[in-house]
Amino acid sequence: MADELKLYGLGISPFVCRVRIALYLKGIKYHFIIEDVRNKSADLIKYNPVHKKVPVLVHNRNPISESLVIIEYLDDVWKEAPILPQDAYRKAQDRFWAKFIDDKLIPALLNAIMSHGQEQAIEEAQEQLQFLENELKGNKFFGGDNINLVDISATFIAFWLGGAEEALGIKVLTKDKFPKLTEWCANYINCQAVKGILPPREKVVALFNF
Amino acid sequence: MADELKLYGLGISPFVCRVRIALYLKGIKYHFIIEDVRNKSADLIKYNPVHKKVPVLVHNRNPISESLVIIEYLDDVWKEAPILPQDAYRKAQDRFWAKFIDDKLIPALLNAIMSHGQEQAIEEAQEQLQFLENELKGNKFFGGDNINLVDISATFIAFWLGGAEEALGIKVLTKDKFPKLTEWCANYINCQAVKGILPPREKVVALFNF
Repeated sequence: MADELKLYGLGISPFVCRVRIALYLKGIKYHFIIEDVRNKSADLIKYNPVHKKVPVLVHNRNPISESLVIIEYLDDVWKEAPILPQDAYRKAQDRFWAKFIDDKLIPALLNAIMSHGQEQAIEEAQEQLQFLENELKGNKFFGGDNINLVDISATFIAFWLGGAEEALGIKVLTKDKFPKLTEWCANYINCQAVKGILPPREKVVALFNF
Repeated sequence: MADELKLYGLGISPFVCRVRIALYLKGIKYHFIIEDVRNKSADLIKYNPVHKKVPVLVHNRNPISESLVIIEYLDDVWKEAPILPQDAYRKAQDRFWAKFIDDKLIPALLNAIMSHGQEQAIEEAQEQLQFLENELKGNKFFGGDNINLVDISATFIAFWLGGAEEALGIKVLTKDKFPKLTEWCANYINCQAVKGILPPREKVVALFNF
């Protein structure tokens, strides 16, 4: 039986983009079903009753929610183009950084954005960004020469953050403080697997125009 | 070379207990190094500079932080007594529920506790608990006959929540609303792998006596 894959999502969500980048890297074909966040489909509520949020991947009728859980699942089932390393210790480190991005860094950045660039909020976000800056070491990507789970998890930082900074006239990820991350952003959004999936820049800027 | 394992933690932390239960299940020997939360050791800050928190596992000089990341690592390296299932879909579901417990359920319960049982906070916590109640289905444990990642993730609910309820004279996990979870709590804390690791009940009650 051929695999049937449906991804419930929307183009503007960085969490949905994460999953689409993983699907692209693995060369997996899927149906992309666009959700209306203001009028969620009965399918979305049935498949993700806990959070009622995208992304949801449905693989042969089995629904999976949460972008990082979906990516680990894809990596478990489709072995080609691995997103997580084989080595258990490196895998644990990548999981740690992906979790750090979701639990600490993105909330701190959203706080800086929602406060319209309040000084203390920017400083707190920069404190967290510094950990990621250090983690790049001398590499092009967090995964070395190729993108991995940490790169994909940082999609928001690579593209959405810049849109918010432009919309609000603020700067969190400054080139002088974060030279490696600045270069990483440019490298990452120009990857073949990433650039075709990102939404138009003006839509991201408009999202933060509040 | 024999494996050298050190776990930095403290007895009263449910997140440290998670890791100790996983180590017990796998029959792994380790040195337990007790941290003073008010005077953190230089080792802890070196090994976990991002969060400066326990638990930290150091395996042959490689530090790993975050309880769920540590447990996945242990399960990757020590194959005996698996904590995650082999099947990719069941594994994704277990990861989803573990994440739900950390991201949604424990924060909602802490909110109910910190508010000293404010009605709306209790209702919100119960709404989240209901998802876990349903997930037990007719099983003794979330893992079926044996405990798995979801059971271990819910250690706070099995033991700490009851301590907080007693200290504050409130009730969130009521027997009438959550008959399956109530039974699960009793089954879980009586497991061989769990009961020897849990701190004394009176210490947990004292923790919430504020």
